[in-house]
Amino acid sequence: MEAQPQKLLRPNVSALDKILGLPLKLLDDGFIRVVDYMGDDSAIVQAARVSYGKGTKKVHDDRGLIRYLMRHRHTTPFEMCELKLHVRIPMDAWRQYIRHRTASVNEYSTRYSMAIDATQKTAPVKWRHQAQGNRQGSAGLIDPAIGRELSQKEVALHEYARAVYQERLAAGVAREQARKDLPLSTYTEAYWKIDLHNLLHFLALRMDIHAQEEIRAYATAIGEQIVARWVPMTWEAFQDYRLGSLQLSRIEMEIISAIGQSNIPSALKLAEAAGWLVAGPKGLKKNRERQEMETKLEQLNLQIPWTK
Amino acid sequence: MEAQPQKLLRPNVSALDKILGLPLKLLDDGFIRVVDYMGDDSAIVQAARVSYGKGTKKVHDDRGLIRYLMRHRHTTPFEMCELKLHVRIPMDAWRQYIRHRTASVNEYSTRYSMAIDATQKTAPVKWRHQAQGNRQGSAGLIDPAIGRELSQKEVALHEYARAVYQERLAAGVAREQARKDLPLSTYTEAYWKIDLHNLLHFLALRMDIHAQEEIRAYATAIGEQIVARWVPMTWEAFQDYRLGSLQLSRIEMEIISAIGQSNIPSALKLAEAAGWLVAGPKGLKKNRERQEMETKLEQLNLQIPWTK
Amino acid sequence: MEAQPQKLLRPNVSALDKILGLPLKLLDDGFIRVVDYMGDDSAIVQAARVSYGKGTKKVHDDRGLIRYLMRHRHTTPFEMCELKLHVRIPMDAWRQYIRHRTASVNEYSTRYSMAIDATQKTAPVKWRHQAQGNRQGSAGLIDPAIGRELSQKEVALHEYARAVYQERLAAGVAREQARKDLPLSTYTEAYWKIDLHNLLHFLALRMDIHAQEEIRAYATAIGEQIVARWVPMTWEAFQDYRLGSLQLSRIEMEIISAIGQSNIPSALKLAEAAGWLVAGPKGLKKNRERQEMETKLEQLNLQIPWTK
Amino acid sequence: MEAQPQKLLRPNVSALDKILGLPLKLLDDGFIRVVDYMGDDSAIVQAARVSYGKGTKKVHDDRGLIRYLMRHRHTTPFEMCELKLHVRIPMDAWRQYIRHRTASVNEYSTRYSMAIDATQKTAPVKWRHQAQGNRQGSAGLIDPAIGRELSQKEVALHEYARAVYQERLAAGVAREQARKDLPLSTYTEAYWKIDLHNLLHFLALRMDIHAQEEIRAYATAIGEQIVARWVPMTWEAFQDYRLGSLQLSRIEMEIISAIGQSNIPSALKLAEAAGWLVAGPKGLKKNRERQEMETKLEQLNLQIPWTK
Repeated sequence: MEAQPQKLLRPNVSALDKILGLPLKLLDDGFIRVVDYMGDDSAIVQAARVSYGKGTKKVHDDRGLIRYLMRHRHTTPFEMCELKLHVRIPMDAWRQYIRHRTASVNEYSTRYSMAIDATQKTAPVKWRHQAQGNRQGSAGLIDPAIGRELSQKEVALHEYARAVYQERLAAGVAREQARKDLPLSTYTEAYWKIDLHNLLHFLALRMDIHAQEEIRAYATAIGEQIVARWVPMTWEAFQDYRLGSLQLSRIEMEIISAIGQSNIPSALKLAEAAGWLVAGPKGLKKNRERQEMETKLEQLNLQIPWTK
Repeated sequence: MEAQPQKLLRPNVSALDKILGLPLKLLDDGFIRVVDYMGDDSAIVQAARVSYGKGTKKVHDDRGLIRYLMRHRHTTPFEMCELKLHVRIPMDAWRQYIRHRTASVNEYSTRYSMAIDATQKTAPVKWRHQAQGNRQGSAGLIDPAIGRELSQKEVALHEYARAVYQERLAAGVAREQARKDLPLSTYTEAYWKIDLHNLLHFLALRMDIHAQEEIRAYATAIGEQIVARWVPMTWEAFQDYRLGSLQLSRIEMEIISAIGQSNIPSALKLAEAAGWLVAGPKGLKKNRERQEMETKLEQLNLQIPWTK
Repeated sequence: MEAQPQKLLRPNVSALDKILGLPLKLLDDGFIRVVDYMGDDSAIVQAARVSYGKGTKKVHDDRGLIRYLMRHRHTTPFEMCELKLHVRIPMDAWRQYIRHRTASVNEYSTRYSMAIDATQKTAPVKWRHQAQGNRQGSAGLIDPAIGRELSQKEVALHEYARAVYQERLAAGVAREQARKDLPLSTYTEAYWKIDLHNLLHFLALRMDIHAQEEIRAYATAIGEQIVARWVPMTWEAFQDYRLGSLQLSRIEMEIISAIGQSNIPSALKLAEAAGWLVAGPKGLKKNRERQEMETKLEQLNLQIPWTK
Repeated sequence: MEAQPQKLLRPNVSALDKILGLPLKLLDDGFIRVVDYMGDDSAIVQAARVSYGKGTKKVHDDRGLIRYLMRHRHTTPFEMCELKLHVRIPMDAWRQYIRHRTASVNEYSTRYSMAIDATQKTAPVKWRHQAQGNRQGSAGLIDPAIGRELSQKEVALHEYARAVYQERLAAGVAREQARKDLPLSTYTEAYWKIDLHNLLHFLALRMDIHAQEEIRAYATAIGEQIVARWVPMTWEAFQDYRLGSLQLSRIEMEIISAIGQSNIPSALKLAEAAGWLVAGPKGLKKNRERQEMETKLEQLNLQIPWTK
C-alpha cells in the first residue's frame, strides 16, 4: 500500500510542548496539566489514509480530510491520538468526570495516604440559584449578603469535618475508614488518559451549557487551552460541526420544509399531529418538544407557524 | 428513593417471544435469530427514573420519557436492555460486523471444526456497478447477460476453492492452515450479544444508505423485525430522532438563518467565506461540503442562494 | 452448523426468580437486589459450543465444559450472561465500585433530586485500626470505649452536614451546588448492569481479603447469594479455579522444582540470584517477594529452603 | 500531593526511536512497524505513585514497583503507555487479531481501493499436520513431497481467484462486491493502537504455544523486538510473572499440600473426590484436568501420587 514504509520521527507539537507539565489553574485550588500526548492532526490524516488508500490524497488536503471526517462523524482516526492529563479536582466534580468509562485512570488513594488537605470553597458571590425550568441546573446568583453567611458556614463545616478526620487518625482508625465523612468538596488528584475521539465526546457533553459549572470549567480549559493547541485543525472542525451544530428531528425537518414552501397550514397540521398544539387555559399547553423547536426556529430566523 | 423495593417479575415481551429462535432468512443462505433478550421499553424508563428521581413521573409518561432520552442522546438508560442473536453471515460481511467492538461474540471456529460448507452466491441479476461519485459504493446493476457469466465463474471458483480445502484436509493438513484460502464469501456463524444503546449505534451506521448492501440487509432485519417488536417506543423514537434526523453545521445554520431573513447577500458572503463559491471553468468548482448543504436545503424546501 | 435452528424459550432460573426484587440488606442502610438477568449456566455452554462446533458435545458435559472454560480463562462465553442490580451504597464505597468500567450504570442524581437522607453510620465496636504491614488496609478493632466517642462525633457531623445542606436549599441554592459538602458516607442508589465475565473479575478483586470491608460486603453478597443461585456450575468453577487458586511466578516454580528434587542448594542459589537473600542486621533483610513465596510454601506444606 | 507540578519533557525511548517506522518482516510478505508510542517504564511508575502517594518512593525503586504491580496484576498503571503499529497481515490471521476489542484500528478498505495484490504463500516444507490431542492445533510437518504439490495448487488457486477478481473489476463490478471471493490469505494492512496493559494481555494469549503459528509470529515480534526495547523493566516482569507463571487450582493446591506432607493417601483421596481416578479398561480413564495436573507436577519435580 505505502510503497516503502520508512524511518519515522515521532510527531511532536511544539505549541503543546511549551505548556507540558504547567498547571492551568481551575476553581480555587484545582488544576489540569498535560503530562504527555501521542499524535497530532497529521496522525489522524495518516490513519484515515490507510483506510481510504492512495486515492484520498488527490481529493482532500489534510484540513479538508479532517473536516470531512468530523462532519461525517468518523471516529476511528481520532482514536489514533491520545492525551494524558494530571487533574486536581473536587471529588464532587470527579464523580461526574469518572462516569466517562473510556479513559484510563490512576487516582490518588486515601486508603494508602492521608486525604489531600484542601476542599473547594465557594466565594460569597458564587452561590447559584436553583433553576426553575431545568430541574438539574442553576440560574442566577444568590444575594451576596446571604452568600457571605453560606460561605462562612461552609468554611466552618470544612474545618469541623477535617478535625473529625484528624481525630480519627490520631485514635488509630484506618485511613480507609477515617475518610468516610470527608465532604465531597475534598480535592483529589488523578492521572487521566483518553483518546481524542472519546475526549471530544467528553467535551461535547461537558462544555455544554447544561453541564455543571465546575466540570464545565475543566472541560473548557481542556478544549480551549489544550486541544486547540494540540490539534488545531481538529479543534476548528469540532467547533464547526459538533459544538456549533444543530440536530433537526424528522418532525422538525418536515415542519421547516412546509415553512420553506410558505405552507403554514401544512406546518400547523404536522405540529398538531405531533401533539404539540394542545390548547390549555392560557394559550398552548406547555410542550417541551415544541419549545425546543421554537428555539431552533429562532436560531434559524424562521417563522414559528403557531405564533402570530 | 423507591419507598419500598419489592418482589419483581422479569419483564418479557410476548411479541418477541413469538419469534424467539426462529431464523429470519438473509442473503442466499444466511439468517439472524433472537436467542435471548433482557429488558423492554419499561426497563429503560425504570433506569432513567433512578437517575431523575421521583419528580420525573409527573413530567413524562413512559413514551414521552423515552422520546426525551432519545432526542437528547442520553445513552445509559438504553444500555439497560440487551439482545443476543445467532447470526449466519458471509465472512466478508462479518469483517464489517465485527468492527463494532462493544458486542460480545462467540464465533464458529474453523480451527476446531471443518469450515461451514456454504458460500454466498450472487444471482446473475445482482451484480452491482461501481459507483462513480462515491468511491466506496455501488450504483445500478450490471447487464444480466454479463452477470450470468460472472455467476457461473463464481460457482466454479467456489467449487475449486472447496476442492483445494478438502484435498488439504485429506492430506492431513491442520484445519487452521487448510482454511487459509477459503473465499471471503464462506459463511460463518456466531452468537452476538449487545446492549440496546450500542445496537442502535450499529443500526444508525449499518442501515444507512451508504452501508454495503449485504450488511444493510442484516441491520435492517434487526431493526425492523426485531427491535421494532422488542422495544416499540424506542424504535419509534429512534426513527424520528436518529434515522430521520438532519445535522446542520455552524456554517449551515448561519446560512439558513440569513435565508430566513431573506438576506441572500449575507448568505452568499457566508458561503464565500467558507470557500464554497470558487469559480471554475464551467460554473462553481466542485465542493463536497457545498453539495452536502444543497441537498439539505432541497430537503427543507429552502432556496439555494447561489443558484438562480 | 446447528442442523436446524428452532423455536426457543428464554432460559430462566427459578432459584433466582425467587429473590427477584427482594433487597439483600448490607451495612446499616444499604442493599442489593436483583432487577433482571439474562442467561444461565446453559447459555454459557451454548455459546461455547458455537465456537467449538459439534465435536464438543462428546468430550464434555455441561459442567465439565464450564470448568474447562474457567480453568483456561476463557472469557467470551461468560460474557453471554448479564445481571442487573439495584444497589444502595455509601458514596465512599461507590467510588471504588464505579472504577469497574465495564458496567452500565444509572445513578441517582443529586442535581435533579434532593440527596438521599441517609448516611452510613459506624457502630462503636466497628472502628478498625490502621494496618501496619499493609499501608492500605485495616487490622483489628479500636477499643469500644474510644469507638463510642468516635460514633457520637460521627452522628454529630452527619447532622451538622445535613443541616448545612438543608439551609442552603432553603436559601434557594441550586441542588447541584448545595450538595458539595455532603459527607462521603451519604447513601446513593444506582442500577448497575454487567456481564458475568466482568462480574467475576469484579468479584475476584472485591471479595479478596485486601478489598475494603464495605465493598467486600457487597461483593460477597453478590457472589454467595446471587451468582451462586443464578449460575451454580460457574460459581463452583470460579471458587475452584479463581478464588481458591494460586499463581506461581517463574522464579517460584524454579525454586519449588529444586525443592521437589530435594536440591536445597539449588533452591538457595535461585533465591540468591533473585536478590531475596540479602543479609541484614538481624537475619535476612525484608523482601516482599520472598515473603510472598514463604506464604505460598506454607500453604503447600513445602519446606522454606532459607529457614531451618 | 506533588509539591509543585513542573515543566515536563515528553519521555522518549531511544532504543525504540531507532526502529521507528522500520518494518520487521513477518511470514512471506507481512510486517509490523512502530509508528508511535506514548510513555515508558517511568510513566508506569509515575502513574502508580499518584495512587499510592509519596510513601511509595521509600518502599520501591522503579524496577521493584513495576515488578510488584505486574506480580499483583495491577492494570491501570500499564494503561498509561500506548503503542501504535502499522501491520501488514493476511486476513485469516487478522480475523484473530481483530477479536481483541480494546484496540483502535484503521484498516485498509477494499471497498474504497483495490485489494492488495498479495496473498500469503506456504512453502512446501511448511504445511502442518492436524494435531490429534488438541483439536484446534497443528503438530509436525507434512511430507515435503506432498507439500510441494499442495504449494503448487495453492499458487494456482491464488492466481485463479485474482483473475476472477480482476475480471469482475474489468466488467465494472463494484469493488465492495468484487472482493467477495478473495482468499482469506489475502494481505491487508492496518494501523493498530493499544495500551500496554491490553497489549500484554494480547501477548499472553497470542505468544502462547496454543496460539496459531501465524499470529504467534506477530505477537512474538511485538513482544521480543518492540516491547522489550520500549519498556524493558515491564518486559522482564511480564516474562517472570505472566508468561512464565503457573496457576494452581484449589484442588491442585490441596493435593500438592498433601504431597508436601508426604501424605500420599490423602493426595489420592483428594484426586479421587475430584473424579480424576476412574478406572478404565487399560489404566485410569482419560481425564483432562488430571493430565493438566500431571504436567504441572512434572514441571515442579513433584511426585505424581497416582503413578508408581
